[in-house]
Formats: sequence, C-alpha cells, structure tokens
Amino acid sequence: MEIVRTVEWMRQIAREARAGDRLTGLVPTMGALHEGHLSLVHAARQGCSPIVASIFVNPKQFGPGEDFEKYPRSFERDVAALEEAGVHYVFAPSPAEIYPAGFRTTVDVAGLSERLEGRSRPGHFRGVATVVLKLFEIVQPRFAFFGRKDAQQHRIIRQMAADLNLDTQIVGCPIVREPDGLAMSSRNAYLRREERGAATSLYRALSAIKTEIEAGERDVTRLNTVMRTVVAAERSAALDYAEIVDADSLEPVMCLRRTCLALVAAFVGKTRLIDNALIEEFGDTFSVTL
Amino acid sequence: MEIVRTVEWMRQIAREARAGDRLTGLVPTMGALHEGHLSLVHAARQGCSPIVASIFVNPKQFGPGEDFEKYPRSFERDVAALEEAGVHYVFAPSPAEIYPAGFRTTVDVAGLSERLEGRSRPGHFRGVATVVLKLFEIVQPRFAFFGRKDAQQHRIIRQMAADLNLDTQIVGCPIVREPDGLAMSSRNAYLRREERGAATSLYRALSAIKTEIEAGERDVTRLNTVMRTVVAAERSAALDYAEIVDADSLEPVMCLRRTCLALVAAFVGKTRLIDNALIEEFGDTFSVTL
Repeated sequence: MEIVRTVEWMRQIAREARAGDRLTGLVPTMGALHEGHLSLVHAARQGCSPIVASIFVNPKQFGPGEDFEKYPRSFERDVAALEEAGVHYVFAPSPAEIYPAGFRTTVDVAGLSERLEGRSRPGHFRGVATVVLKLFEIVQPRFAFFGRKDAQQHRIIRQMAADLNLDTQIVGCPIVREPDGLAMSSRNAYLRREERGAATSLYRALSAIKTEIEAGERDVTRLNTVMRTVVAAERSAALDYAEIVDADSLEPVMCLRRTCLALVAAFVGKTRLIDNALIEEFGDTFSVTL
Repeated sequence: MEIVRTVEWMRQIAREARAGDRLTGLVPTMGALHEGHLSLVHAARQGCSPIVASIFVNPKQFGPGEDFEKYPRSFERDVAALEEAGVHYVFAPSPAEIYPAGFRTTVDVAGLSERLEGRSRPGHFRGVATVVLKLFEIVQPRFAFFGRKDAQQHRIIRQMAADLNLDTQIVGCPIVREPDGLAMSSRNAYLRREERGAATSLYRALSAIKTEIEAGERDVTRLNTVMRTVVAAERSAALDYAEIVDADSLEPVMCLRRTCLALVAAFVGKTRLIDNALIEEFGDTFSVTL
C-alpha cells in the first residue's frame, strides 16, 4: 500500500489506471476510521481495483464554531487498518494541497442542501460537494463508496454525479452499528460514558417507528411524534430534527409512499449525532432498514 | 466525422479514447460558427486526436430578456465547416439531454464572476461554468480551446479547471478579426449595415490605447478615458464598460503592471458586443495584443 500526499502524484496513478481501463474504487473518508468505513472498503473489494481511500479532514464542510480543530485524528492507526482491509493507495493531502491560495470555486446542489443537516449546518453540503468533486477529478474513480448513515449527503452526491455527468457510480453502503444500536461515527469518540445511553435514543427512535410501521401505521405525523418522544425522554439529548421525508426530494411527506427516509439528528451533550432508516414500499407493506 | 446526439454515446467514445491514452481536444461552441471558432479547431489539430467540437446553445447562460431564442443557428453549415476543418466528432445534444428534469447543480467561481460581464449579465458565468464542466465530464478532453475574445470567460474557466483539479488543460487562442478590426462574433450577424461603422469603435478604442501605451502612457485613468471617448463618439453605440484590469484578479488597476486586460463592452443598436486587448509587461515596455 502506498501513501500519496500530492495531487499530481495521485493524478498520475489515476491516469495510468484509466489508460489500463481499470475499475478504480474510491472510499472518501475524514479518517478516524471505524467499522463503517472499513465496510466501504470491503464493498469496493467486490469489484474494484485499484482501491483508493482518501483521508482528508475537509475544513470547508465545517462551519464556524463546529469541531474542525478537535475532529478526531488517528492517521497511523487508519493507515494500518486500510492496509489490512486491502486498500492499494491512501490519498492523504494537506489542506494547502487541496485548497491552494486563491481557491474560489464552489459546487451547489440546490433544493437538497438547504433543509435538515443544511439548515443546522449552513454551507456544509457546499463544502462536501466541492471536495467530493475535487477528489473524483483527482482519483477518477469508476465507483465511489459512501455510507448511508449520512443519508442526505449520499442523496446530494448522487444528484451531483448525475447532474454533472460524472463518470463515477455512487454506491451507498448500509449503516454499521455498535452492538447497542448506536450508528458508528467518528464523533462517537466525543461521547462521555454517561452519555452513551442517551446516544442510543436515535436508534431506539428509529426502531420504535419500525415496529409501528410493521404494525400498519402509515401516518407520518404520528410516526414523527413517536421518534421525537423517544429522544425527548433523554435528559442529556436535545433533538434537532426527526422527520420522515421522500427519499428522492428530501421533502416532508404526509403519508408513507414509495421510498422514504426517517431522519433524526440530536445533540447528546456537546456531540451532534445523526441516524436514519430507509422505508421502502413492497406491494402493500413497507420494509424498514436501520 | 460523426455527429453525436447523446451523452451516453459521447461518453463511450471518450472512455475508449482515454483507455487508449489519446489526447482528446474539445472545442466548445454555441454554433453559428465563424473563423474565430475554426481557429480553435486549427489550434486543436496541432496536437490533439480525436478532436471533438460541441454545438450547444446553453440556455442557462442567457438571462431573462437576452437573446437565447433568436441566437443565430446554422447547424448544417456549422457541421460542414467542422468536417472541412478536420473535426472527428460533433457533440450536439438537445437541451433535455444536458438538463434533464430535476437538474439542480451549479458551479460558481466566486470573485471573478460578479464584475464586468457578470454585472451586466447576472448568472451568466454560473451558466457557463456549469455547462463547461459538464462538457468536460462527458468528453473528458486533455485539452480544451477557448477564444480570448471572451477574456473573462477564459479566466473563469482556467480558475475552475485549477480549483476543481480537472485533468483538462485550458488553451486560450487569439482573437480573430474582420478586415476592419471588428472582433469575430456570432452576434455580429445582428448588426445592421448602418451600425457596422459604430461596431468597430470597440476595436478603435483598443487601438487608441495601444498607441498611447506604446508612446509611454501608464496612467490607467487616462487610458480608460481614451477608450470611453472613442466609443462615446458613436451615436449608435452605448458603452457598458471600458476598463483596464489585472489579468489575474480582474480587479481594476491604477497603473499598468505585469499583465493587464483592457476590456470593453457596448451596445451597438440592440447588439451587445465585447472586445479586449492583452497588455503584457516586457522589461521597461508593454506590448499590447489586440
């Protein structure tokens, strides 16, 4: 496995791979890797070679007062885990390599970026879309792997790839959870021991509506109330949003139909957590995937 | 020569070209071709194969009330001229092929897009940057050729290519002029016979400061006044702007230094025209290229 620090070196590798018509797979990460990230590498191994994992804590997707400075960093451990998982190249550029002086171009995916995470984190998805496009241009992957835990991000990246005619297929991979249901996240490292119980309330809220939906509930207002009630029961949790939206438009729905997402975000202490469930129509029933 | 109507067909050709490590050259046009466009093809022929010319009148770079509907179209003649010039593929998609329902992604090059043309044509450069990026993604050219008549556009595309790490080198080609100095433009077809004299006032304004600069004038305020006076002398011309700016930042300068651009825009009758001159420092002197 090779660690690549510069755009030009990475580009040279990408050019050779595409001249050889190889199926490059990209797993973009901000490091602080957990089993969720490694599941993306395992997915990439099914059909891609070479596999490139990027490690770049992207300053442009953090807002003022967010956790850019203290975002967990564990480069040596990450590199060892990626090598063990079968990655061929780790692309780990510096911020100045990605954003040289005078950088001024941004990508916006209008209509999907403003609500939910975008409302709580203005500019976040502009930063995400811009850096992901840059990574795609540098690595030129035929497949790129994203976790479905960041459901809105996944939806926005798919839209960007379609709209800009990118020659990269976006693959969404299932959420990986701790034994107690907590969705794996690098930010879980911030949680204090006494907050851990409250942190699982997002998962428990989603589990509660899974039970309701499987019992026949279709009324979104009532399902949203169920989710909010579970999170509100935790003293150390502060709900940001819990709502069921159309999976395509990310707009609120009144009644379950086609494919929906139940999205929940909350602060637990000072740690902001998100989680979601995919709600898919199958004939007369709905399946809920956590 | 082949005419390609769909993104998927064009992408297939591009994939084969890059798998063969060929140097694809792209000449993006809106059709209504003149010698300026053909000079871009000639430049591409110096080192590129295959050469792709696109013909697409991009609705997103026209503002409300601009000339999208009546923009000159001469597809059969354009195709014949491109074949004659040695183009291998003409990419001529429909608007719906480029902007399918639900399209919502935009690219902005902040700080270079708001002044000059951008002030008179809000959103214009967002439309240009977005469609050019899409064409690059579809055609995957190693070189793309743009006329320097659209100096601000050329500067913005170069910035976008650098900022987004595009694997496409932007080549700027000299302005091609009519015998009377008028810069070639598809919009010259709008000019009435009696407006033709006034239309050359942009060229004459630039020629006047070329003479002044070669005689030693360095004061930009005085040079700007010279340009404005030449255009103002024409009754049927209405000046939009005439100013000398830094070629890199496109910000106004007080005194000639390094590389500058003299940019001029005016309405002649109902036709909006632009022109420019490149002012380059060589030791103690400046050369002015019209």
